[in-house]
Amino acid sequence: MAAQETFAYAALVVQIVLLVLFATCTEYTPMGKASAQTAQEQLELAAYYPMFQDVHVMIFVGFGMLMTFLHKYGFSSVGLNFFIAAVALQVALFWNAFWHNAVHGDWSHKITLDVKALITGDFGAGAVLISFGALLGKVTPLQLLVVCVVELCWYALNEVLGATVLLAVDMGGSMYVHTFGAYFGLACSRMLCPAPKATDNADNKSSKTSDQFAMIGTIFLWMFWPSFNGALAFNTNAPGSQQRVVVNTVLALAACCISAFAASALLRGDRKFDMVDIQNATLAGGVAVGSSADLVIEPWGAVVVGMVAGIVSVAGYVHVSPWLEEKLGVTDTCGVHNLHGMPGLIGGIGGAISAASATSDMKGYDADAIAHIFPGRGAPPADVTDAESWTYKTYNRNAGKQGAFQFFALLTTLGMALCGGAFTGWLVGKVGGGDPGTMFDDKVYWEVPGEDHDEEGGGGGGAAEVELSSV
Amino acid sequence: MAAQETFAYAALVVQIVLLVLFATCTEYTPMGKASAQTAQEQLELAAYYPMFQDVHVMIFVGFGMLMTFLHKYGFSSVGLNFFIAAVALQVALFWNAFWHNAVHGDWSHKITLDVKALITGDFGAGAVLISFGALLGKVTPLQLLVVCVVELCWYALNEVLGATVLLAVDMGGSMYVHTFGAYFGLACSRMLCPAPKATDNADNKSSKTSDQFAMIGTIFLWMFWPSFNGALAFNTNAPGSQQRVVVNTVLALAACCISAFAASALLRGDRKFDMVDIQNATLAGGVAVGSSADLVIEPWGAVVVGMVAGIVSVAGYVHVSPWLEEKLGVTDTCGVHNLHGMPGLIGGIGGAISAASATSDMKGYDADAIAHIFPGRGAPPADVTDAESWTYKTYNRNAGKQGAFQFFALLTTLGMALCGGAFTGWLVGKVGGGDPGTMFDDKVYWEVPGEDHDEEGGGGGGAAEVELSSV
Amino acid sequence: MAAQETFAYAALVVQIVLLVLFATCTEYTPMGKASAQTAQEQLELAAYYPMFQDVHVMIFVGFGMLMTFLHKYGFSSVGLNFFIAAVALQVALFWNAFWHNAVHGDWSHKITLDVKALITGDFGAGAVLISFGALLGKVTPLQLLVVCVVELCWYALNEVLGATVLLAVDMGGSMYVHTFGAYFGLACSRMLCPAPKATDNADNKSSKTSDQFAMIGTIFLWMFWPSFNGALAFNTNAPGSQQRVVVNTVLALAACCISAFAASALLRGDRKFDMVDIQNATLAGGVAVGSSADLVIEPWGAVVVGMVAGIVSVAGYVHVSPWLEEKLGVTDTCGVHNLHGMPGLIGGIGGAISAASATSDMKGYDADAIAHIFPGRGAPPADVTDAESWTYKTYNRNAGKQGAFQFFALLTTLGMALCGGAFTGWLVGKVGGGDPGTMFDDKVYWEVPGEDHDEEGGGGGGAAEVELSSV
Repeated sequence: MAAQETFAYAALVVQIVLLVLFATCTEYTPMGKASAQTAQEQLELAAYYPMFQDVHVMIFVGFGMLMTFLHKYGFSSVGLNFFIAAVALQVALFWNAFWHNAVHGDWSHKITLDVKALITGDFGAGAVLISFGALLGKVTPLQLLVVCVVELCWYALNEVLGATVLLAVDMGGSMYVHTFGAYFGLACSRMLCPAPKATDNADNKSSKTSDQFAMIGTIFLWMFWPSFNGALAFNTNAPGSQQRVVVNTVLALAACCISAFAASALLRGDRKFDMVDIQNATLAGGVAVGSSADLVIEPWGAVVVGMVAGIVSVAGYVHVSPWLEEKLGVTDTCGVHNLHGMPGLIGGIGGAISAASATSDMKGYDADAIAHIFPGRGAPPADVTDAESWTYKTYNRNAGKQGAFQFFALLTTLGMALCGGAFTGWLVGKVGGGDPGTMFDDKVYWEVPGEDHDEEGGGGGGAAEVELSSV
Repeated sequence: MAAQETFAYAALVVQIVLLVLFATCTEYTPMGKASAQTAQEQLELAAYYPMFQDVHVMIFVGFGMLMTFLHKYGFSSVGLNFFIAAVALQVALFWNAFWHNAVHGDWSHKITLDVKALITGDFGAGAVLISFGALLGKVTPLQLLVVCVVELCWYALNEVLGATVLLAVDMGGSMYVHTFGAYFGLACSRMLCPAPKATDNADNKSSKTSDQFAMIGTIFLWMFWPSFNGALAFNTNAPGSQQRVVVNTVLALAACCISAFAASALLRGDRKFDMVDIQNATLAGGVAVGSSADLVIEPWGAVVVGMVAGIVSVAGYVHVSPWLEEKLGVTDTCGVHNLHGMPGLIGGIGGAISAASATSDMKGYDADAIAHIFPGRGAPPADVTDAESWTYKTYNRNAGKQGAFQFFALLTTLGMALCGGAFTGWLVGKVGGGDPGTMFDDKVYWEVPGEDHDEEGGGGGGAAEVELSSV
Repeated sequence: MAAQETFAYAALVVQIVLLVLFATCTEYTPMGKASAQTAQEQLELAAYYPMFQDVHVMIFVGFGMLMTFLHKYGFSSVGLNFFIAAVALQVALFWNAFWHNAVHGDWSHKITLDVKALITGDFGAGAVLISFGALLGKVTPLQLLVVCVVELCWYALNEVLGATVLLAVDMGGSMYVHTFGAYFGLACSRMLCPAPKATDNADNKSSKTSDQFAMIGTIFLWMFWPSFNGALAFNTNAPGSQQRVVVNTVLALAACCISAFAASALLRGDRKFDMVDIQNATLAGGVAVGSSADLVIEPWGAVVVGMVAGIVSVAGYVHVSPWLEEKLGVTDTCGVHNLHGMPGLIGGIGGAISAASATSDMKGYDADAIAHIFPGRGAPPADVTDAESWTYKTYNRNAGKQGAFQFFALLTTLGMALCGGAFTGWLVGKVGGGDPGTMFDDKVYWEVPGEDHDEEGGGGGGAAEVELSSV
């Protein structure tokens, strides 16, 4: 298998390039001094680290296990998820820094490596894994590696533009992670493995056991989503942000779980729960509340967002995905359009609305508090002094202008994702893909042992070998 | 399936009622002010949040996976656990507040939503899920939803009476969560699905794979139990409580694990370990030490409690459960009587004994420290001024009186659980149950894919359809 | 089964001895006083507890699930791992204290029980479980219990000598946990169950489902490894240590994951990924960076260590393990030599090198900071006053001397592990082992239900019974 050798060498080259970048462009946080950390600094580590680990669990267990629902693709699902996330969390650091420096024209700082940096690495990995969900089972490990490295370039550019130029806040990544990852993956999938070739495959389905493994992923994602939305909300100057994120996200997810169960029972033809809905749509509330989770949407607002997201997501699996596949030729193995795409749009729009309604006479929030939540609502930072510049003028916004910029960031994200995904799909098609006959099957890239019953039936490893040699 | 439609509409109605309650009765913690949180407030979030997530894992992964031991009921086990817990954590907030206000005649405050409130919501969910363990496989989703909403009313009333009127402390919920949930579920099961109808079913058993999934639940419960017992023990005025809870709970669980393995090898007829014991009885120490985990039981006390609980629990599975089923007609799918019922009683009694022995000449604890652990040992709060009232007189207790009140709270819990459970079982029976022939089988309510070997054998999805249509 | 009865009584005796030790030799941390904890003390609990829980997850879920890869030995893998870890975390506390007091001749203090103590208990459990990995499937529960208690004696002696006499630092336990556990297990396995008897067994293999369960273990180990390496690095006097550990460990693991995937594709004959490599070699970076994770190895150093460890570990599975088995008769069920042994040696050597290069003119680190990282580089503690004593003279080292002592501690560890393991293997052989024909099979010690397909085929529980009775 020459493809596997190419993959292996490419992986090593990527890691060696990363090694050089780590050696030349990074440094630890200032900490080697004899003076003890202040209590505040120590508190920050205590506050960030558990949330970092929760996000880590979402990336590696959550996404990894959720994708194991394919009955013959469990090794690839959890294994390639593992590999790609380990690549992405490193690569994201450098693309983020590259575009940040390029856009702001300041190359004087090294990248500071601390827990906060690792969280941003995991966020980048999240976007790549969402795209992977659309491509699952249809791409080779080598193609996936290329998608990962290229996607993160687009991802970082979009995030730097949105967060630091448009000053659109997106605490939980509804736009920059979920919307971007989903539409990037869909565009990439459309270019690379369009229907019907890619889905007319008997192995594109689950089994009882593989669905059970997938539920482990679902539940870990569901539980730790408040940490994803709130990991970067620790802010000594915006008191209460993190508590608000946690409460809003838990409420949105709980409401979403309930509406997804109800919708699954109502919208499926035979009135039975469908595991696809339960595994995915129950999470849509976490996506949809992401942009606005730290904003003042009130608990009832979070519940409404969650309920709507759960219903929309189930409806997506029942109605939208088949339509996308038939009419547009878009194949979407995990249904990321329903779990991340549409809920991400809801999140982005919700964020714009709640930003537009955070007027300066809002009860209990003075101008300072609002400016800590929305930097664009405050005065320009000290280093922006040219009062005629666009940068200067974009500060001191009112609520409506902030809402408009939030919405504009959502459109930008959508455009970047679709263009970047289509470009990447075209590019990766050149790398050469797998045989359609071997999709959704671990045996092409993995040593796969038999199942217990095979062995007792007499076939066992031998039978597996036969199938292997026929590939 | 009209029943599924009714379920779906009922679920949506419940969530919409909750939405109205969130809109009218709740508020965020005070935090939107410009003034920064104090370091102490920030520390509280850092201290509560990881424990909240551990409790969350116990509720959603722990209980959910533990119940998947039934070989044909895995989707329902983890799925309905997920659904019911998401309902319960919301409902519990409002029943708790309702009874608290009703009992104390003070309706002036909104419910404050913060991480601490979410932890109490999860505690309520724990009680419901324990009851679900007794009913597992024998109730419809609709019945379960009704049980959940009604049970939490009784649960909250009992907890408010015990904790705020009787002033009986129960840090880890041995009484208010475990004893209550178990006996409520047993009484409910007796009314709703008595033996032999409910258990004379070939599908009420495990398989090798389903037992392995269940062990994931067991181990997450076992690991994070110290967080369950200690989540609410963070108290700047009762120094050391939380450390003591953690140490005592870990020791009780470790000792319990060992005695449960030993008892399983000794008490089972063929001297082999039985997975039922290992999955459940290893956890009994966490239940049994709950009430007294923050008290001064000394490490050896925790070890004794754990050892006894492990042995009692295994003996329960071997001897007590069959007796309950044959003599009293009580069916108990997960054996919650052995894991939560009897260990909960041990915990309540242990709490009473350790309270009675915390005399005021106890080494190293002055009156202040004792009053922080047992509010009833201290002076009445500032707003209780009528020296002739029962409320006033219940303060300033000595150790013996505190022990008596602890024991009284245990009896109250038992009574409320049995009455509430029997009432709820009767009520839910009116809702209409499933066909006994379809118990313990996912196929009634779920789309269930075939297993791998089915497909290879030629039957596959088709075979599953046949079974479905014959239901 | 008389063997099971003996096991059960032995387990109870061990727990009762532990009970007596807890009653006589331990105490809570000072905390029962009326004075509130200082903010600093509260911060320490908030900082230690989440890391303790992560380590707990590694021990019970990580090791437990990772070992379930054997297709007929899943109950034993996760169950005995659970049992042994619960024993070990208690036993380790007492052996640690015993040797610490014996070596330093000071018996005046009780053992303080707090979260930090529980972490050290889990570290001891880690060493035992690594050794268990070499013995998996080949020893009886009773033998395993004896190994656990005896091994921890050697483990504690080695750790006390290395850390408190040689003053060799090993924050993540590359030497004291991983190297020790691996070579102890290998020596024990060589004495107790040498090849070819122990491995010429058709059941010493995985199945598709068992490999999937094992991946759950792998991923939890991988994610939480930074907590293992950093759990004890919280130090208000060595600012930044813990952040450095986290960053270095995450980078080493990410690089290792990538190099292990590449090596698996390159070194396996058919150019396919092998689950054995992915489950194990991806973790080698965490082992290898352990000793030096808190040192100033710079991010690129961590990446290099990780890459090398991943490749060495895969090469170990492909080339070294078969050689050890054929030439030396050493059987190693989980390949702990490749995951813990060789990476541990890399870690120990890496620690020595980085210690030797931490010269006093190192940029950004003054003498104080260095002395906090390496106690041997500083002045003797206040109670060491005899300037002529060996103890006194071992302080005030330069960088080279510290490096030499690190290397010497590695050699000591290797020697103690091999001697201790061989002795223990010989000793445990006297206890009487299982029948080679029943190795790697749960049915000998567990009630094992049938699989779903058995039942549908008509055999079901009955078939399982037949197999049981033929044992």
